[in-house]
Amino acid sequence: MTSPGEQMHALVERLYPICRSLTGDGVRATLDIVGEYLPLRVHEVPTGTQVLDWTVPQEWNIRDAYVADATGRRVIDFAASSLHVLGYSVPVSATMPLAELRPHLHTLPDHPEWVPYRTSYYQPDWGFCLAQETLDALPDGDYEVRIDSTLEDGHLTYAEHVIPGRTADEVIVSCHVCHPSLANDNLAGIAVATFLARELAATTPHYTYRFIYAPGTIGAITWLARNQERIDRIKHGLVLACAGDPGRLTYKQSRRGDAEIDRALRHVLRESQRPHRVAEFTPYGYDERQYCSPGFDLGVGSLSRTPYAGYPEYHTSADNPAFVSPEAMADTLAVCREAFALLDRNRRYVNLSPYGEPQLGRRGLYDALGGRSDAKEAQMAMLWVLSLADGDHTLLDIAERSGLSFAVVAAAADALHRAELIKE
Amino acid sequence: MTSPGEQMHALVERLYPICRSLTGDGVRATLDIVGEYLPLRVHEVPTGTQVLDWTVPQEWNIRDAYVADATGRRVIDFAASSLHVLGYSVPVSATMPLAELRPHLHTLPDHPEWVPYRTSYYQPDWGFCLAQETLDALPDGDYEVRIDSTLEDGHLTYAEHVIPGRTADEVIVSCHVCHPSLANDNLAGIAVATFLARELAATTPHYTYRFIYAPGTIGAITWLARNQERIDRIKHGLVLACAGDPGRLTYKQSRRGDAEIDRALRHVLRESQRPHRVAEFTPYGYDERQYCSPGFDLGVGSLSRTPYAGYPEYHTSADNPAFVSPEAMADTLAVCREAFALLDRNRRYVNLSPYGEPQLGRRGLYDALGGRSDAKEAQMAMLWVLSLADGDHTLLDIAERSGLSFAVVAAAADALHRAELIKE
Amino acid sequence: MTSPGEQMHALVERLYPICRSLTGDGVRATLDIVGEYLPLRVHEVPTGTQVLDWTVPQEWNIRDAYVADATGRRVIDFAASSLHVLGYSVPVSATMPLAELRPHLHTLPDHPEWVPYRTSYYQPDWGFCLAQETLDALPDGDYEVRIDSTLEDGHLTYAEHVIPGRTADEVIVSCHVCHPSLANDNLAGIAVATFLARELAATTPHYTYRFIYAPGTIGAITWLARNQERIDRIKHGLVLACAGDPGRLTYKQSRRGDAEIDRALRHVLRESQRPHRVAEFTPYGYDERQYCSPGFDLGVGSLSRTPYAGYPEYHTSADNPAFVSPEAMADTLAVCREAFALLDRNRRYVNLSPYGEPQLGRRGLYDALGGRSDAKEAQMAMLWVLSLADGDHTLLDIAERSGLSFAVVAAAADALHRAELIKE
Repeated sequence: MTSPGEQMHALVERLYPICRSLTGDGVRATLDIVGEYLPLRVHEVPTGTQVLDWTVPQEWNIRDAYVADATGRRVIDFAASSLHVLGYSVPVSATMPLAELRPHLHTLPDHPEWVPYRTSYYQPDWGFCLAQETLDALPDGDYEVRIDSTLEDGHLTYAEHVIPGRTADEVIVSCHVCHPSLANDNLAGIAVATFLARELAATTPHYTYRFIYAPGTIGAITWLARNQERIDRIKHGLVLACAGDPGRLTYKQSRRGDAEIDRALRHVLRESQRPHRVAEFTPYGYDERQYCSPGFDLGVGSLSRTPYAGYPEYHTSADNPAFVSPEAMADTLAVCREAFALLDRNRRYVNLSPYGEPQLGRRGLYDALGGRSDAKEAQMAMLWVLSLADGDHTLLDIAERSGLSFAVVAAAADALHRAELIKE
Repeated sequence: MTSPGEQMHALVERLYPICRSLTGDGVRATLDIVGEYLPLRVHEVPTGTQVLDWTVPQEWNIRDAYVADATGRRVIDFAASSLHVLGYSVPVSATMPLAELRPHLHTLPDHPEWVPYRTSYYQPDWGFCLAQETLDALPDGDYEVRIDSTLEDGHLTYAEHVIPGRTADEVIVSCHVCHPSLANDNLAGIAVATFLARELAATTPHYTYRFIYAPGTIGAITWLARNQERIDRIKHGLVLACAGDPGRLTYKQSRRGDAEIDRALRHVLRESQRPHRVAEFTPYGYDERQYCSPGFDLGVGSLSRTPYAGYPEYHTSADNPAFVSPEAMADTLAVCREAFALLDRNRRYVNLSPYGEPQLGRRGLYDALGGRSDAKEAQMAMLWVLSLADGDHTLLDIAERSGLSFAVVAAAADALHRAELIKE
Repeated sequence: MTSPGEQMHALVERLYPICRSLTGDGVRATLDIVGEYLPLRVHEVPTGTQVLDWTVPQEWNIRDAYVADATGRRVIDFAASSLHVLGYSVPVSATMPLAELRPHLHTLPDHPEWVPYRTSYYQPDWGFCLAQETLDALPDGDYEVRIDSTLEDGHLTYAEHVIPGRTADEVIVSCHVCHPSLANDNLAGIAVATFLARELAATTPHYTYRFIYAPGTIGAITWLARNQERIDRIKHGLVLACAGDPGRLTYKQSRRGDAEIDRALRHVLRESQRPHRVAEFTPYGYDERQYCSPGFDLGVGSLSRTPYAGYPEYHTSADNPAFVSPEAMADTLAVCREAFALLDRNRRYVNLSPYGEPQLGRRGLYDALGGRSDAKEAQMAMLWVLSLADGDHTLLDIAERSGLSFAVVAAAADALHRAELIKE
C-alpha cells in the first residue's frame, strides 16, 4: 500500500510519455488513464464550433516524426520524446540540407542538454525541438525530414467529474491537459486534482465540486462557452498547475483579490506556517485568465508550487518525473484539502443572545473556577464567535480578526450551535 | 493638602482590607466609603432577578474563615487577608486530614510567597488560597476547617453617580467593585473613576456623565438589563481597570475599533508622547465585554496601565497598595481628563465662507506683515479648520489630518466661531 | 537656437528687475513681456470690487524710493532692487534720525548679506528692506527717507491664455505674478507655465487648458469670483511655484488627496524615477489654498521643486536668476508635459469581448509561436487592458495595478481600440 504521494507520482509516470496537445488522441489516452482513478464524463466538441471569441481548431494527431541523416540514422526522433516535435506541426516529408532545416529547429542555447517545448497552434508551421548539443553535433549535408501528422476536422476533448454537494452552488477545480511530456506542467496538477476528487467523493460536501480536465485556453474557453448558464452557481474555483516541483507553494489570487477563495488560501497557508507566497492576480498564466476574464470575473485562483516560467526546467525536457516528488504533490494536495474544507464550512451565524454575554458556564461551556488568567483558546474562540456572530462576519472573518485558526473557530461555532446560542 | 494622586492612594488603602465579592456587605462597605467622596445612588437588585441571559445569584457574606492545626493555631486566616478564602465558598465546619483538605487549597507554585485569588461563583464549592511555602510547611495531620459564610437570597449591589450635562447624551465610566484585597485590580480603577467624577462634577460638561460602580460581568449585565432604554443615548464609554501599576498605559479599543472614544484615546496618548500601547478589542477582559456585546456594540473602550493578566502580581497578594502609586493613578486620571475634554469639545462645524479663504486679516485673525515664512501654529489651525469645516469633519478629524493637537485646533475653532466664520 | 530651458531662463532674467506687487504697473509690464511669448487676455478689475469675502484693494505704484544719508548718498535705493521697499508702502517724505527710522527697516540677521522680501498689503505701513550688514554700517544721524509711491483707486490686473480642447472640460494652470525681484518665486513658475502653454497650443488637446497669471491670493480669489459658472467644468488643475531651483521636485496633493491629478503626478514622478517628494495637502502655500477651499474643492495640486519656505534663499535677494537653472525649469516643464499628456489620454474603456480572452493571435496582436515564457510588456499591457476594461477602471488605474507605465498601457489600448476589441 503506497502513500497518496507515491500513487500520484506513479500516475505522473504513466502519463508522461503520452504526446498530448490541444486536441487529439493524446488527450483521449490521458483521460482514459485518469478515468481508471475517477469516473470521467468525456466531452467531444467538433472542429469549427464557435466558442466565445474562438473556434475549435482542427484536431491534430501524430504517429511518427524524425530527422534522419544520410545513413538513415534518426538524429531527432519523436519516439524518444514527444517534445521533439513542434506542437501542431503540419505533415512534412522531404529531404533538405541542414541550412534549410535549421530555421525549423528550436533549441535552448543556455541549457544545451535540454530539449525545449514549442507549439504553433494557430499558425500553420512545422518544426523540431532538440538539445543544442545535438544540433551542434549535426554535420552539414542532407537530412530526411518526416512528420507523419494529421491536422483535420475532428474534435476537442475535455472531461469532467462532478461530486454532488448538499447545494447546487459549485466549486470548480481546473487543470490543463494539453502539455506533452512535461511532469510539473501539468501532470502533477492532473494528479493532485484527481486525488483531491477521490477524497472529496468519499464525503457529502456542502458545495457541488466540478473537476475540469481540459486543454489550456481553448479548453477552458470551450467549457465556459458550453456552461454559461452554470456560471452564476460557481462560488469558488482553483486552477491547479505546476503542483509537484520542490519549490514553496504559490497562491495566485483571483482578479477580485478579495474573493473568499483568496482569503481561504491565504489563511490556510499562513496558519500552516508553510513557506509560501501569495501573488497578485495578473492576466497571464493558466486558465484563471479565462475564468477571471471581466465578463465572468469568477472567484478562481491558482495554486502552484513554483509558478509558470519561474524555474529553469519550465517547458523543457528537464521537467520530467524526477523533477516532481511524491512529497511535494502530497503537500499541494493537503493545502487544497484544507482550503476546500474551510470554504465548505465557512458561513455566517447570528448570536441569539447578543445583549451581554450569554452565561456559558450554565451551559457547561466555560471553566467553572474563576480568577484564572489562562483563558483557553477554545473559550476565546467561543467569545469571539459570540462577539462577531452578527450576520455580517463569516467564520473566516472571525478567525482572521481573532488570530485563531479556522478549525478552532469552527469548533467553537459547533459548540455554540449545539447550545442553541447561535443560528445560521 | 495632599495631591490628588496621594488622595487616590489613600482611598485605595482604605478600601484594601475589605472582602468584596459579586454581592454582599463588602461591596456595600466599599460604596459607603466611595460615597464619602462622591454622592452615590446605590441600587439593590434581588436574588433571582432575570438580567439578560443571567440570573442575579444568591448573596454571599462571610464573617470568618480559617484552617487551624491540631493546636488550634490558625495556619490560614481570613482575618489576615480576604484572599485566603475562595470567593463564594459555601459554609464549612469540619475536621479533616491534610490529604482531604489539599484539593481545596490553591497556591501559586511559581510564586511560593504569594497568595492567589480564586473564586467559584456559579458552581458551589469551597476552598482556601495560601502561599505555596505555607502549604509546604504544613505537617500532615488533622485540621479544623471553618468557613463561616452565608449564601442566601439577598441582593446584588451597584451604584451610580451622574453628572448632568448640557445634553442627555451620555458618557459612561465603569469600574468593577467585586475584587477583594487587590489594589490595582480594581481599587485603583475605583479611585481614578471617583476623582475623575469629582473633577467633572465641578463643571457643566456637554455630555451627561454616568459613573457605574458594579461587580464584574453580572453587575454590568444587571446595569445593562435595567437601562436598556438608555443605551441609545450612550455615545462613549470607558472601563477603568488596573489603573495604578507602574507600567505604561494601555488603551484597549472598542469592538468597533473606530469609535470616537477609540480615536480620542489614541490622539491623547499619541500627542502626549507618553509611552503607551493601543490594543485591539478582544472579547475577553473586563466589562467592555458586556458593553461591546454585539447587541449593544457601544463605543466603550478600556483604559489600563498593564492590562489584566499582563503582570505577575495579577490576582495575587502581591497586588497590594505598594504595587500602585500616586503618580501612576494621577497619570491615568490625567489621560481620562484629557480624553473626555476632547470628546466633550469635539464636534463638526460648517465654514460660512467656504468659497476661497475668508479674509482673516480684516478680522484681526492674521498676521498683518506678509512675506514671513513662520506661519504660526494657531494660524495654521485656523486655516485647517476653515479647510475641513464642511460638516463632515470633526475637530478631531481636523487635528488628526493636520497633525496639530486637538487643543490648538479647538482654540482655532473658538476664534473662528467668535468671528462668525464657522457655525456648528 | 537655444533650448527651451535657456529660453525660460532668459524670460526669468527679463522679468527679474520689475517691481511687481498685488496690483500696479509692475504686473502689467510683466504680462506685456509674457504676451510676447503667448497671446494673453488681460483683465482689469476695479478697486473696491467685492470678490468672494474680499475687496479688490487700491492699486499701488512706485516710482522711486530711497534712504539717503546727510551727504545725500542713497544708502538704500529702490533702483538697485525692488526688494528694498516694503510692498504696498504708503508714500513718505521725511528726514529722521536712524533711531526713528529703525523700526521701519527689515533685515535678516542670520543672512547678513541678503535683503529680505516683506509686504504690508492690508495694513497701511511703510518700510525698507536691506542687508543686515548695510544696516550695521549706518552711522547714527539724520536720514532723508523718501518713498514716491501711490496707493489709489485703480485696478487689479490678471491675465489668461486659453487653449481650446476637444471638450469644454477644463484644466487650469495657475501661477502668481505678484512677487517682485524673486526668480524662483515665481518667475520660474511663470516661465514654465508660459512654455507649457506654447507647447500645448501646438496641439488639439482633449481638455481646454486655461493658464491663469494672477497675483497671489487676491488674484486667485478674483478669478474664482468672476468664474463661478465655470467651476464645474474644471476637471484638473496645477499651481506652479518655485519651479526652477536645484532641489528635487515636490508635488503637493489637492485637498482631496486622490484627485485624478494627484494620481497622475504621482504616477509620472514615480515612473520617471526622478528623485521627488509627494506632499500631503495643507491649507497653506500658494493659490491651491483658494482652488481647494471647501466650497470649490477642486482637483488642483501644486508642483514645485523645493517648496515655499523650504530653502534659505526663499523671499530674499538670494532668490535671483542665478538660483534657478535652465535644466531645473526644463525638468519641471517635462513633468508637467507628461502629467497633462497622461490626464489628456486617461479614460475608461469597455471590453467588447469580456467572456474569456479574445483571440489576439487571429488579429495579429499576439506572438504566434507559443510556449515561450517571455511575454512581452506590450502583450501584458493588452491583457491587462482587456482584463480591467470594465468601465470602472481608467488607463491610469490599469497602469497602477499592472505596474506598467501609462504610456505602454495607453499604446495597448490604442491597439485594442483599432482592433475593435474595446470601446470608450
